[in-house]
Amino acid sequence: MAHDKGEATVIFQPSGRRGRVEKGKNLKEISVGLGVDIEGLCGEQGVCGKCKVRVEQGFFEKYGIQSGPEALSPLTDTEREALTARECEQGFRLACVAQVLGDVVVFVPEESRLGKQVVRKAGRKLDIALDPALRKYTVELPKATLEDTLGDWERLQAALRKTHGLDGVTIDYTALTSLQGAIREGDWRATATVWRDREVIRVTPGGEEKAYGVAVDIGTTTVAAYLCDLSTGELTVTSSAMNPQVSYGEDVMSRISYTLTNPEGLAQLNRAIIQGLNSLLEELAGEGGIRAEDIEDLVVVGNTCMHHLLLGIDPRYIGKAPFPPALHHSIDLKARDLGLKICPGAYLHVLPIEAGFVGADNVGVLIAETPYEEEQVRLIIDIGTNGELILGNREKLVSSSCATGPAFEGAEIKYGMRAAPGAIEKIVIDRETKEVRFRVIDNEAWNDEADHIGAKGICGSGIIDAVPQLFLAGIIDRTGRFSKDLDTPRYRVTEEGPAFVIAWARETSIGQDIVITQDDIRAIQLAKGAMYAGAVIMMRAFGVERVDEVILAGAFGSYIDRESAALLGLFPDCPLEKIRSVGNAAGDGARMALLNVGKRAEADEWARQVEYLELTLEADFEKRFTQAMWIPHMKDKFPSLEHLLPGKGRGK
Amino acid sequence: MAHDKGEATVIFQPSGRRGRVEKGKNLKEISVGLGVDIEGLCGEQGVCGKCKVRVEQGFFEKYGIQSGPEALSPLTDTEREALTARECEQGFRLACVAQVLGDVVVFVPEESRLGKQVVRKAGRKLDIALDPALRKYTVELPKATLEDTLGDWERLQAALRKTHGLDGVTIDYTALTSLQGAIREGDWRATATVWRDREVIRVTPGGEEKAYGVAVDIGTTTVAAYLCDLSTGELTVTSSAMNPQVSYGEDVMSRISYTLTNPEGLAQLNRAIIQGLNSLLEELAGEGGIRAEDIEDLVVVGNTCMHHLLLGIDPRYIGKAPFPPALHHSIDLKARDLGLKICPGAYLHVLPIEAGFVGADNVGVLIAETPYEEEQVRLIIDIGTNGELILGNREKLVSSSCATGPAFEGAEIKYGMRAAPGAIEKIVIDRETKEVRFRVIDNEAWNDEADHIGAKGICGSGIIDAVPQLFLAGIIDRTGRFSKDLDTPRYRVTEEGPAFVIAWARETSIGQDIVITQDDIRAIQLAKGAMYAGAVIMMRAFGVERVDEVILAGAFGSYIDRESAALLGLFPDCPLEKIRSVGNAAGDGARMALLNVGKRAEADEWARQVEYLELTLEADFEKRFTQAMWIPHMKDKFPSLEHLLPGKGRGK
Repeated sequence: MAHDKGEATVIFQPSGRRGRVEKGKNLKEISVGLGVDIEGLCGEQGVCGKCKVRVEQGFFEKYGIQSGPEALSPLTDTEREALTARECEQGFRLACVAQVLGDVVVFVPEESRLGKQVVRKAGRKLDIALDPALRKYTVELPKATLEDTLGDWERLQAALRKTHGLDGVTIDYTALTSLQGAIREGDWRATATVWRDREVIRVTPGGEEKAYGVAVDIGTTTVAAYLCDLSTGELTVTSSAMNPQVSYGEDVMSRISYTLTNPEGLAQLNRAIIQGLNSLLEELAGEGGIRAEDIEDLVVVGNTCMHHLLLGIDPRYIGKAPFPPALHHSIDLKARDLGLKICPGAYLHVLPIEAGFVGADNVGVLIAETPYEEEQVRLIIDIGTNGELILGNREKLVSSSCATGPAFEGAEIKYGMRAAPGAIEKIVIDRETKEVRFRVIDNEAWNDEADHIGAKGICGSGIIDAVPQLFLAGIIDRTGRFSKDLDTPRYRVTEEGPAFVIAWARETSIGQDIVITQDDIRAIQLAKGAMYAGAVIMMRAFGVERVDEVILAGAFGSYIDRESAALLGLFPDCPLEKIRSVGNAAGDGARMALLNVGKRAEADEWARQVEYLELTLEADFEKRFTQAMWIPHMKDKFPSLEHLLPGKGRGK
Repeated sequence: MAHDKGEATVIFQPSGRRGRVEKGKNLKEISVGLGVDIEGLCGEQGVCGKCKVRVEQGFFEKYGIQSGPEALSPLTDTEREALTARECEQGFRLACVAQVLGDVVVFVPEESRLGKQVVRKAGRKLDIALDPALRKYTVELPKATLEDTLGDWERLQAALRKTHGLDGVTIDYTALTSLQGAIREGDWRATATVWRDREVIRVTPGGEEKAYGVAVDIGTTTVAAYLCDLSTGELTVTSSAMNPQVSYGEDVMSRISYTLTNPEGLAQLNRAIIQGLNSLLEELAGEGGIRAEDIEDLVVVGNTCMHHLLLGIDPRYIGKAPFPPALHHSIDLKARDLGLKICPGAYLHVLPIEAGFVGADNVGVLIAETPYEEEQVRLIIDIGTNGELILGNREKLVSSSCATGPAFEGAEIKYGMRAAPGAIEKIVIDRETKEVRFRVIDNEAWNDEADHIGAKGICGSGIIDAVPQLFLAGIIDRTGRFSKDLDTPRYRVTEEGPAFVIAWARETSIGQDIVITQDDIRAIQLAKGAMYAGAVIMMRAFGVERVDEVILAGAFGSYIDRESAALLGLFPDCPLEKIRSVGNAAGDGARMALLNVGKRAEADEWARQVEYLELTLEADFEKRFTQAMWIPHMKDKFPSLEHLLPGKGRGK
């Protein structure tokens, strides 16, 4: 690529924001210009070390650029003081010091990003009986004497039998290594954590009732984790982070091809997610006032690729037809075998997989929403980097998967961002004046009610609002194109094409107008069109003309507005009152399996019953997809939206 | 300690040989003077790197000296070329280059020692039915298609059920990671290694019948390992090595105290044995023409302390009354959990423990010799760094343990050595002329029949011959003292007291006379006295005046001569024809448990039935011990030896 001598391309990961910038500027200045949030406490003096970023090494095919350390000014003494030797080796720099000399891809790690992803803190209140895999049993042991030199484990075993009726219990070898110390520290009173009444995984001194477990939903883009008190069922702390694998590829296919082209690729991706999980677990423990080693159970869901990469299984076979996974069933393995730093004896339960591209995350949705218990036909749409669909009732279940891309998660959208404080989550456009009202996460007031708004970008739920609002206000037409005759200062035509201003620079904390571009709208149309077409094909397979209920799931910060989703045309017509937005149902399913082992059996049972439909094998998928790109659809009728859609304009 | 300016104390480990030497000499020269064998191929040019030794760091209480790198001349460029950076960090030096500047303790690693320990290559032919924990099942799998996208594991599971009737089999997660590749490499034909018909631990492409396992006996001083073909039961390769923990303490108590005084002690000792085992396993695999990852099962025996240190369990509680072990039962754990580098899914089976000081090695002896099947009362003596005794028959079993020290293993004996080529293993002294006939390992000829003998030292069986031969020839008296009126050039009085020449310098490869000193004789008397006293006290507890049979076991290179053992007074009187020497019975037991899972159950059952007798609690132990120091005993009669003992001299 021919570049100006004085300019370079800078791409920030994982947001994907990019720009041509003047060489010599430091990364922090550039990040401000591109609306990328990088932490900083010292006023760019290079001392607080908060603005740590990592320069990526290698050729980035997607952007057509080569990135590496030489694209930045040499490491300074200031940086050598603020960064550890290991960080320097890994390519970390201080954004406020490092100057751009050439094309570069820069990764902004979780801890250097302003504000954390918001996962609905409360979590849904789950209607689930408490029956976890772990139970704590406190026992009093007879002291060892010269007359009674029974091994300490046999002593504990006998007490578990006598006091709690447990028979044939085994012990994890790591529990064995701390057994004797724990028993004596508690003066011959100790508590055994027993997994499924079968295996002692930990022994602690004295009496102890609290037990903690974590449910994890590994998304392609975001990892959400829930710390639960297994003695009460209470959700104690929720947290989330970017999936660190993002820097190796934004979607499933690009990660699979990374492992195919790099001999160390599988190991790198596996290490990335393990390290990411360890940070998240450490953080959850800290916020929950416990130590990571007090986490004694772990349940994980994720799509098939995330599942395989977590387990260190080569994903090459799920990347090409006939897409067979390494296993379908759930699996229990020692968390330590993966390098997870929780209680050394703890198990990790991974929910089963349905099919090559319908993974354990969808099984989580399944057991959280239990369509198999209903008579009504339910369509469940799980929105992530991949869209996953379930359709069915107690008679039959069908599932499918479509590659939507990460648009709904705010990635690859010009001002898209994660659901973090400052993200525009709700948008209303006046049909007459074309004025925009919006609200940002962590702020109760609308933009026209508050002095300071400080918007930073637009997150998933805001994006899903924006497109139908633009359409209803006549700013874009049914095909998604900007209208030509717009008389509002919010409309402009830039080098990148037409755009519409959602937030004026003064309403932001990034000092520039936040706009929605034609490309953004196209990305959203592609994503929603794939979902809609998938749903239609599944309905045909199932043999219904319409669905009774729609459930919208996804690890968004805010629930998706059902009206916006319906108007956007994310799915075929359904009465509005029959549409529910449930948040992260995959995570809910993981929490349920954590709290109740019966749910684990249910998951294994139902995962096998779901019929997987490979959409790309359907001859008319392309046609249906193209029609569904329209807002809400090129041809289909939406009786339930009649009162909302522009009067005569519906139908053609 | 006050030392001459020009001299320093040098101690070589693990042999314990030591001397005062002139400063400035290099370690190789010194080793020759002290009869320590260090490898060398380049004629001390510092290029072959074969004479690698490690300088030990710290204060050695036993010797009253401080050792560390500063006791040797600085690292030279020659050494920097011959040694890896890691080796330099770890304190390795080339013996032919490093000069002694002060008191120093030097460890000679296995690979730098001339000649390897000899473990009876043939091994005993074991009379045992083949029923190992592992079986290999070959299956043909239906190929995955778009219509049949069942997970590969479920595919394999179904085939195992259909073809081999295996139900409810699980899979180890490491096997899962290579499953898909293996199945495709074998073109949908694969072999599953199944542990106890319950768990797939490995999947290999195509058909494969051979399976390999290793039985290991971890002695305090020596580790013996046996590679077995699990499809035929055949013993393929036998090997052994010093237990690398020797450099942290020569006996069990000193290793326990090392862990008590060093915060990292337990981890160091654990790492040492794991690394030692890994080298040994690697070597076995190499000699057996397989890869270490082809070793799919492992059975380990060892005394309680070795058992705990292997498993990373703090041995502090077995070091003091009431000596309760962490567990008595056998345990199955993943070998990878300990860092053992064999098949990643393989299990390690550790035999059960009887009591605080009667460990899994004794259980190995028990299931190899099966006294519980006999009517006759059997006394089994297992000679190691610790002596362990079993007495009993089908009615009752008693066991005990006594600290004999490593004298019988050749350690702490001036010219003692392991059973390696060049070790004197058989000694006969003419009663009249006091001339000595001897034979060395790996040489058929006696010293008076061959031109070149090349003796290097005396190993266990030679030491057990030597004392009664000296006694029968009147060179020492019943109390073990050298006679005053000896008229033979072989007798001499040195600075260290009186000594008797076994091999003249010309008969050796170390260029000096190999002698037995008064201290050596005392060490042997202490060891054998403890055994004898233990046996007598056990007989009282059992309620017998004499035993019907004696079995001599121990991981010696050669079998112990039963006549010598009887004459030395290692045990009370027993008809000579009822004494058997069986070699490493603990290792035999481990092999049996490797080849037959029924033996594992038998071990758990009988280990619980053995009554442990704590000898030190018996009021008359000291008295009996003192009496048993005599040769063969101060008071007891030996009708079975009447024809061998000096005519009237027997009794007082």
